Amino acid sequence: MQEKAFQDYYPDHLSHCYGCGRLNEHGYHIKSYWNGDESVALFTPQPYHIALPGYVYGGLIASLIDCHATGTASAASYRKAGRDMGTEPALRFVTASLHVDYLRPTPLGVQLTLRGKVKEISERKVIVIVTVSAQGTVCAQGEVVAVKMPAHMMP
Amino acid sequence: MQEKAFQDYYPDHLSHCYGCGRLNEHGYHIKSYWNGDESVALFTPQPYHIALPGYVYGGLIASLIDCHATGTASAASYRKAGRDMGTEPALRFVTASLHVDYLRPTPLGVQLTLRGKVKEISERKVIVIVTVSAQGTVCAQGEVVAVKMPAHMMP
Repeated sequence: MQEKAFQDYYPDHLSHCYGCGRLNEHGYHIKSYWNGDESVALFTPQPYHIALPGYVYGGLIASLIDCHATGTASAASYRKAGRDMGTEPALRFVTASLHVDYLRPTPLGVQLTLRGKVKEISERKVIVIVTVSAQGTVCAQGEVVAVKMPAHMMP
Repeated sequence: MQEKAFQDYYPDHLSHCYGCGRLNEHGYHIKSYWNGDESVALFTPQPYHIALPGYVYGGLIASLIDCHATGTASAASYRKAGRDMGTEPALRFVTASLHVDYLRPTPLGVQLTLRGKVKEISERKVIVIVTVSAQGTVCAQGEVVAVKMPAHMMP
């Protein structure tokens, strides 16, 4: 893995996201990296990110999938364009739809591994598949349709 | 609306959820109520629940939909069985799948209204459709497949 995460390349005005913005002091600070053609993020939930005793809250899992996927969409778009991440104009994506299948309860107290794969990519839209694993077992799988951020949403 | 929310009837050992558990001091404390055949929850995001400046974080929206839907699944199951909520054995549901369409950016700084409708109900499975509105405009729509909590997940 390289040292700098996808999210570290986002310009400051796009770095306030609760899931992955480095400037959001309350947030999750999700960090995604390339590992070959796969994007990877590691995340250890807090003890209070609980659904039932012993299991991770599903809303957190959806959040992790969401931000890892939009980050992957951004990184994959730079890669496809042959551009370095962080160069302007920013290629930044928002979520059009999110689907999560909770395959089995996700154990709390261990590090989770998210792996993303680009299923489809065009200039305007990227579809990313993400798995969430705990101790080598896939607990949830998500599919995110990410679309290029509309100009009117740019701060 | 009645005074006691669906989630207030959950037994203590099932009330630790980050999204809706009354015993989770870090959580969102989502509260859902019947309004006729529709379930309703109101929620005002914190200023740090941000995606981009001015807009609500999509992962939070997914979380609200998730907990409002599983709460609705529980309440609808009690209603269908002609039982009072809170009576034993607890009818409690977990999320098998969650789908969210983000129709338009959700403005930050206003109260959000979630409305749930039961699309399908059987003893084992309840499908709930949830809309999330801000100032009268639907910003996101979700569909949750909720399944009866497996015995092995009961704490």
